[in-house]
Amino acid sequence: MFSSYLPISSEGGDVSFQNNVPDPVTSGKELPTFKFELEKSEGRVMGGSYGKEATVLQLPISKGIAGVSMRMEPGQMRELHWHATAAEWAFVTEGRVRTTVIDPAGCSETNEFEPGDIWYFPRGHGHVIETLGDRPCHFVLVFDNGYFSEFGTFSITDWIGHAPKELLAKNFGLPAATFEKFPKKEVYFAKGKIPPAVAAPPLQGWKSPPLTHKYRLLAQKPFATFDGGIEWRAEGSQFPISTTMTGVVLEMEAGALRELHWHPNAAEWQYILNGTFSVTMFGSGGRWRQETLSKGDVGYIPQGFGHSIENIGRETARILIVFNSGHYQAIDLSQWIAGNPPDVLATNFSVGPSVFEAFPRRDVFMTR
Amino acid sequence: MFSSYLPISSEGGDVSFQNNVPDPVTSGKELPTFKFELEKSEGRVMGGSYGKEATVLQLPISKGIAGVSMRMEPGQMRELHWHATAAEWAFVTEGRVRTTVIDPAGCSETNEFEPGDIWYFPRGHGHVIETLGDRPCHFVLVFDNGYFSEFGTFSITDWIGHAPKELLAKNFGLPAATFEKFPKKEVYFAKGKIPPAVAAPPLQGWKSPPLTHKYRLLAQKPFATFDGGIEWRAEGSQFPISTTMTGVVLEMEAGALRELHWHPNAAEWQYILNGTFSVTMFGSGGRWRQETLSKGDVGYIPQGFGHSIENIGRETARILIVFNSGHYQAIDLSQWIAGNPPDVLATNFSVGPSVFEAFPRRDVFMTR
Amino acid sequence: MFSSYLPISSEGGDVSFQNNVPDPVTSGKELPTFKFELEKSEGRVMGGSYGKEATVLQLPISKGIAGVSMRMEPGQMRELHWHATAAEWAFVTEGRVRTTVIDPAGCSETNEFEPGDIWYFPRGHGHVIETLGDRPCHFVLVFDNGYFSEFGTFSITDWIGHAPKELLAKNFGLPAATFEKFPKKEVYFAKGKIPPAVAAPPLQGWKSPPLTHKYRLLAQKPFATFDGGIEWRAEGSQFPISTTMTGVVLEMEAGALRELHWHPNAAEWQYILNGTFSVTMFGSGGRWRQETLSKGDVGYIPQGFGHSIENIGRETARILIVFNSGHYQAIDLSQWIAGNPPDVLATNFSVGPSVFEAFPRRDVFMTR
Repeated sequence: MFSSYLPISSEGGDVSFQNNVPDPVTSGKELPTFKFELEKSEGRVMGGSYGKEATVLQLPISKGIAGVSMRMEPGQMRELHWHATAAEWAFVTEGRVRTTVIDPAGCSETNEFEPGDIWYFPRGHGHVIETLGDRPCHFVLVFDNGYFSEFGTFSITDWIGHAPKELLAKNFGLPAATFEKFPKKEVYFAKGKIPPAVAAPPLQGWKSPPLTHKYRLLAQKPFATFDGGIEWRAEGSQFPISTTMTGVVLEMEAGALRELHWHPNAAEWQYILNGTFSVTMFGSGGRWRQETLSKGDVGYIPQGFGHSIENIGRETARILIVFNSGHYQAIDLSQWIAGNPPDVLATNFSVGPSVFEAFPRRDVFMTR
Repeated sequence: MFSSYLPISSEGGDVSFQNNVPDPVTSGKELPTFKFELEKSEGRVMGGSYGKEATVLQLPISKGIAGVSMRMEPGQMRELHWHATAAEWAFVTEGRVRTTVIDPAGCSETNEFEPGDIWYFPRGHGHVIETLGDRPCHFVLVFDNGYFSEFGTFSITDWIGHAPKELLAKNFGLPAATFEKFPKKEVYFAKGKIPPAVAAPPLQGWKSPPLTHKYRLLAQKPFATFDGGIEWRAEGSQFPISTTMTGVVLEMEAGALRELHWHPNAAEWQYILNGTFSVTMFGSGGRWRQETLSKGDVGYIPQGFGHSIENIGRETARILIVFNSGHYQAIDLSQWIAGNPPDVLATNFSVGPSVFEAFPRRDVFMTR
Repeated sequence: MFSSYLPISSEGGDVSFQNNVPDPVTSGKELPTFKFELEKSEGRVMGGSYGKEATVLQLPISKGIAGVSMRMEPGQMRELHWHATAAEWAFVTEGRVRTTVIDPAGCSETNEFEPGDIWYFPRGHGHVIETLGDRPCHFVLVFDNGYFSEFGTFSITDWIGHAPKELLAKNFGLPAATFEKFPKKEVYFAKGKIPPAVAAPPLQGWKSPPLTHKYRLLAQKPFATFDGGIEWRAEGSQFPISTTMTGVVLEMEAGALRELHWHPNAAEWQYILNGTFSVTMFGSGGRWRQETLSKGDVGYIPQGFGHSIENIGRETARILIVFNSGHYQAIDLSQWIAGNPPDVLATNFSVGPSVFEAFPRRDVFMTR
């Protein structure tokens, strides 16, 4: 079901389980919060542009995955940079975006994104993000490392601004004076003209990578439809470059429930695109927690923890879900029960076997 | 030698070596104990049933592998549960056992086990274990994580018992009253009728997984026979689902010795099936330790540590050995020496080269 | 580009990034030193032979890779041993060396090395190193674990010297008296006759492994030549057994610069073979450090950190570079810039787009 061209990463998964050692954050008598109001946080602001973070500093349970909400005004650019400690997965919610990314083979790809499109940049690959057109854009960045932020982002102006001009001159075969007007410290958000409608070729000309970094997630025929909603999904088999992460959008009618389930191989990071959801989490040892997440809030479920998601608003609403594995795996409670005979269930729950005749005989996944 | 269908996991191995950082438990001037009297420990008792654990709490050196000895009476069930932090490998010693396991593709498999049979459940896959027939059963569970226990076992009654009845009602499309008689907290051991002699089909009907979870280890022709004993072995090439663990049973005559050797790629967990063994361990830096293990005792050898196993009892006896890698690797001292010429050995040991003419010219593995 | 015969290890990379958790050593406001004067350190001396170490004890930043400089006199032997915690990569700088290595399949290989040749021994495989001929030899050992040293080296005399003679007697089927004259504790450096010019066969006869442990790095046609220097490279595609490490030798003319670049997938360990180099390191957050490394000094660049290497001496000189991944990946600053169009660069650096017309339109890699 997955091409052998690129192996599914054996990394991924909750970092505390990778290491086997229990995470103190989830090892107490009570479960910690798994919710952070990302859009209500302050973040890094520059005029009408901002970047707001959810890392282990803001949400201590989120060891395996971090996220950023970013808005940029027209003519704004998130400057050339790379992440030494994480791959980057992104979902565009508003406006239009252009990215250019370089890989170790020297191939660069320029792509344009509209709402519902996603990108994936492998760990350490250099990239730039631009607002396209005369309207602002907004997108959600997701990183496969809850600690990605501090000292994990390397910006080109920070680097060039600290390098001696003579070194740069030799590096590029240019006069040292070339670099006199370059920024002396990190720019982070750069502001310039609105980019051309058609991307200009790079200095080196077009040199495309073998795998694209772009996938039009919501433009696809849904991965599955249910009584109560729709699922779009992009794992390695749909989006081969995305070896360490999988993305899902669930559209759920008012009252719809993504049933009780768990993911054996990955942690889950949630971002509420609109509406209001009730999320439950089961952590073993009698530990249970329920939280209400609204538009712009973030949730996090550690690898293997039971959970459910219910649209408790009055309208159809969407939730973005990202996993830190390129291979999607889930076990739903209804299917687990349907995979056992009535006599086993009767003994387990100390009720008569006839009780289970009414239970679903298939996977429910979503219902209302 | 191993089908490419399932990759050998690159996980496994001693957790302290995975991380490269030395483990404080094995970094002192003296080696810590590597023995725990599992069957003499108290454990969790329910009537004539019990589960006794050997984790890092009981045996601090055992970072990479934990084990449980479990006995269940007729009609007893180890309820539906999953382990978020470890795969489960098991060896049946007494009685008859039936298991049903679900996988993320929704396939469930029901298998029956007799003494000498083994199972493997990948990390996070839900399963149930039942005693079959009118006699008790006993089996040894082995987990590829020495920390597996606390908050690593998720039981279905613990989950359902804490979920609001309205949520369950919606999840299953049933009246909330359905769940009024369900247990309110974790059952762990459930007691019911003796299961039917022939397993009933699951609610969803039979839907078999591509790889079986069962292997009849001791029913196989031995993997190898020696002057002094017999070896049965199940690694990934014999038992393909077992990607993260390998199991071995050694039957050794009185006085037989599994020679000095080490495993470059895995830690070793030992359980004495019967008899009395002397186990030696070499930890570098002049550190040497020898312990006597009897029936029901557990031993643990970190990845790469030298060791030997000798039957010091009066009868032929068996030891169960499990490694935290799906790929068996060992280097035996006799073979290492046989792989070098006499002049090298003479210089290394400051003795004449003729001394080595009498040494074995092949791998000894087991002798007496 | 890499045969599927042996998978590229998913291990490797800086241990702190493997774990995702930031390394305190590189998380301060200032970057720590990345230089250690290895050859000026004291090390372990025995007559004219020595072994000098660079581990996290000597160079705290070097979590992912350790190194040893070893000199041995004629007739000297680094005794039979294995490393439980690391693979060993080596580069011979002077004299002639013979190694014999055993693998878990019982295959042993004997190889002879001259300056410019390299070897690779997988983690845990037993080996011995001998000086050949009547002149001393010198080589640099590199380990894919900055913590490899303490309690990570297991020597055969340490093991046999602590084992009861009766156990050894049974192990080898020999009288216990055989072992009376064997060393009682670790020999480490053994001294004997100069080895025969032609290696004698092992006790078990020749039994060759499928993949050789030897590669004649500097005897190859260069991997690439540049205006200013030459590169030799051995990654998994050239040297298939070397699944966890890649080695490079750069020969650089006076004034030549290995341009600003980073490695997305590996940490870098440097050893100056001769001459004097200026190495710069960029660590994000405005952190920049420049150090001068001379013959025999060691440098270390964490995974993903920007850096450059410049020959600031008066003569052509060589640097040895080893990565903790079997797959070479780098992104050079010139190529990154060349992978973007002028309008993007103009906005990023707040200069006119015409500035970039003079920039290189290809990867520079090395220049002067």
